[in-house]
Amino acid sequence: MLRVDLNCDMGESFGVYELGRDEEILAYVTSANIACGFHAGDPSVMRRTVEMALAQGVAIGAHPGLPDLVGFGRRNMAVSPQEAYDMTLYQIGALNAFVKASGGKMQHVKPHGALYNMAAKDAELSRAIAEAVYAVDPELILYGLSGSQLVKAGEQTGLRTAHEVFADRTYQPDGTLTPRTEPGALIHDPALAAAQVIRLVRDGTVLADTVCIHGDGPHALTFAEAIRQRLQVQNIMVIAAGKV
Amino acid sequence: MLRVDLNCDMGESFGVYELGRDEEILAYVTSANIACGFHAGDPSVMRRTVEMALAQGVAIGAHPGLPDLVGFGRRNMAVSPQEAYDMTLYQIGALNAFVKASGGKMQHVKPHGALYNMAAKDAELSRAIAEAVYAVDPELILYGLSGSQLVKAGEQTGLRTAHEVFADRTYQPDGTLTPRTEPGALIHDPALAAAQVIRLVRDGTVLADTVCIHGDGPHALTFAEAIRQRLQVQNIMVIAAGKV
Amino acid sequence: MLRVDLNCDMGESFGVYELGRDEEILAYVTSANIACGFHAGDPSVMRRTVEMALAQGVAIGAHPGLPDLVGFGRRNMAVSPQEAYDMTLYQIGALNAFVKASGGKMQHVKPHGALYNMAAKDAELSRAIAEAVYAVDPELILYGLSGSQLVKAGEQTGLRTAHEVFADRTYQPDGTLTPRTEPGALIHDPALAAAQVIRLVRDGTVLADTVCIHGDGPHALTFAEAIRQRLQVQNIMVIAAGKV
Amino acid sequence: MLRVDLNCDMGESFGVYELGRDEEILAYVTSANIACGFHAGDPSVMRRTVEMALAQGVAIGAHPGLPDLVGFGRRNMAVSPQEAYDMTLYQIGALNAFVKASGGKMQHVKPHGALYNMAAKDAELSRAIAEAVYAVDPELILYGLSGSQLVKAGEQTGLRTAHEVFADRTYQPDGTLTPRTEPGALIHDPALAAAQVIRLVRDGTVLADTVCIHGDGPHALTFAEAIRQRLQVQNIMVIAAGKV
Repeated sequence: MLRVDLNCDMGESFGVYELGRDEEILAYVTSANIACGFHAGDPSVMRRTVEMALAQGVAIGAHPGLPDLVGFGRRNMAVSPQEAYDMTLYQIGALNAFVKASGGKMQHVKPHGALYNMAAKDAELSRAIAEAVYAVDPELILYGLSGSQLVKAGEQTGLRTAHEVFADRTYQPDGTLTPRTEPGALIHDPALAAAQVIRLVRDGTVLADTVCIHGDGPHALTFAEAIRQRLQVQNIMVIAAGKV
Repeated sequence: MLRVDLNCDMGESFGVYELGRDEEILAYVTSANIACGFHAGDPSVMRRTVEMALAQGVAIGAHPGLPDLVGFGRRNMAVSPQEAYDMTLYQIGALNAFVKASGGKMQHVKPHGALYNMAAKDAELSRAIAEAVYAVDPELILYGLSGSQLVKAGEQTGLRTAHEVFADRTYQPDGTLTPRTEPGALIHDPALAAAQVIRLVRDGTVLADTVCIHGDGPHALTFAEAIRQRLQVQNIMVIAAGKV
Repeated sequence: MLRVDLNCDMGESFGVYELGRDEEILAYVTSANIACGFHAGDPSVMRRTVEMALAQGVAIGAHPGLPDLVGFGRRNMAVSPQEAYDMTLYQIGALNAFVKASGGKMQHVKPHGALYNMAAKDAELSRAIAEAVYAVDPELILYGLSGSQLVKAGEQTGLRTAHEVFADRTYQPDGTLTPRTEPGALIHDPALAAAQVIRLVRDGTVLADTVCIHGDGPHALTFAEAIRQRLQVQNIMVIAAGKV
Repeated sequence: MLRVDLNCDMGESFGVYELGRDEEILAYVTSANIACGFHAGDPSVMRRTVEMALAQGVAIGAHPGLPDLVGFGRRNMAVSPQEAYDMTLYQIGALNAFVKASGGKMQHVKPHGALYNMAAKDAELSRAIAEAVYAVDPELILYGLSGSQLVKAGEQTGLRTAHEVFADRTYQPDGTLTPRTEPGALIHDPALAAAQVIRLVRDGTVLADTVCIHGDGPHALTFAEAIRQRLQVQNIMVIAAGKV
């Protein structure tokens, strides 16, 4: 039986600022990537998000980002591999404390935004990130862009990895993402996104261990519901990467 | 045989900013309180400081502070017990990742600056901090001002605790610190500080499990050396709190 | 003819985080208090908010706060008068650059949250804030809690001042705010809030040069509309403090 | 008579962290570039540095940087031109308030670190920075790397500009800086640095309106003294760019 993990970034609120419909989206996903205070999230948001994920039986991962709160970690920064190692280790450690304090166990790590994108193409940066993950716990699963340097580095480091695809992005014939600057890069229709997910999981051209769905925006829940339902109809098991 | 722990705050550099003579002071102390990125320290400083402490066989503790870098965590802030729990857990978790990644084991937690001072008098705040420590590891030792609410809360929570005294502060007949606003509150002479440490350890009026010495300032090493030497002469064993 | 100013805190979004319905609320108020990047706001939010206020002919004020983004500047912090002077001057200067770059002129300064509340009772802190305002421009108007130390310090410093009342808070017979901990402290009904505003403006027991209305929350616009309409019906002129 | 400006970055301390020997270096330079709180500096440091510069008759400039305190603004960040405009305007405005409050007038703006380096090659980014400077005051002088896009953008925007050279860096025959990765890029001897300054000012291949000298490091004062003295011997007038 085919199977896939559905993951979503969450815990990205900060202080009085609320972002995302975490509690509702948890009903649809199997893995939660929780922000760790650098690009988003604060200690109290982290605790509450961990508790919510555990309450709904969703697997927990750390979602470390660049130290750029005002840019939401989306702006490339010239961090050295050593700095990337240090900031990743710091953030995973911080989230891990909340997970353990709530009686859970962390499943995975997925870098955020610009850190994720830079690592996808940069073997050395990816290596640093993978080593930070390994240092916290060799059983953690490293999530990275499907076919990227990050996944490769995870494998070389001895970690389990999950190739990630995006429900609302289209892919080119060679399996790479259609650049956002080109027409048709983004999928705006829930049904099309669901169909795209099925195709990716069935087809195998792009490795698709886990599918990222978005938790903010007005249509987040509609997308999540459509994808989850379609997977069920197609008899594809939706299960956290760590439970396989 | 009498014994005492010598501790020092360190890892308080930040980015290009250097503070304290950590490497040299490590030769004199048995426990290092390492800043965790809120009042001072950054992920790279934390890693390097952990590695230095381990290399010199000095026990490691987390030194969590208020989120006030510009004020070095010295300004009281009206944080709620829940916020204190969350920020303490976050910081201990972050440091713990570095300690584990370097093959070490964390010994203790000592809150910094205003968080330490506020907790000394506030049972509820102390309770929150103690619970955060306990949540990370029930075997951690909580360091707090001798006789304070913080030590009391640690005991009630089921933690081992260490009553802390200061080498460069004088005490009043009732065992409380002479307020800084009064004459004679501070000890400026290394020999007097060393004598004061001996008195505190021998006398027992003030519980003195661990003595805080300062790692910055022009005379930090002179003080450390004088105190360490005097303890040796007096046949008082200097040993980390966790090794007793 | 009686007259009053209606002010609202705005520009409190930050990066991707949106807060408040600034554009819509600008239709109802005469003065906008724009956050300056310490408790909320960032340079881009500040620029856009200044441009919106100017476009709608609403007078602009700086809304400086404590350096506590995660706490939204609502947690008391033990800042010294000198620190308060410095942080206030910094923030007013930053906002002033945007106002001038857009061809406008700043009308007033209103401290935010804990800085506002602490200053209300602390003559020395208020003095420092008033001097910072005066240093930028002696023609600026200082907004403070009606009858507070802050308004008093403004007057002593030689500034024009505006006594502020709150549309959604009740007052005690002696003219002070009903503490939030007591029943009936908050007004939840727009009609009652409007009636309260009329009473405050007419009565004179509490000096009411300017009325603060809230720009966030689900009912912000309903409140703003009700108050504005009621003032019109009652023939009370709604005009910015600086245009009197 | 030949003339040149000597400038130095300063006000780069932060909270308890001290950096640079500002007070002493002020005796040798004619223009001070004062950090504005993003890459370094805080409101209190800014005030004190402005007061010191005014007291010693040194011209004041804003030294805005990227929002990267832990990286000291030295790491490239993918900021948009609009973001660069906003953050530059914010920082200049903040410093300007201190300068005016102390009775002075700002002379120039010199971007810091990665912002300076990125702008040197990026016309659009430079344009944004130049427009922010112009928006604060069209009479401000924009300092940029000699011959760079930043100086060009300043001229196109209608600003006065100053081509900057470095006392401790060597130049290639074509007038560009020897990359730091190549041997001989840095000058470690004060006498050689002074000779280099004289050559640059006399020669004219590289436009040298202002010479940057460093204010930190153990030999900062020795360099400053050597350069200043040599310029005097050579009858080259040392004068702030704005006084020409």
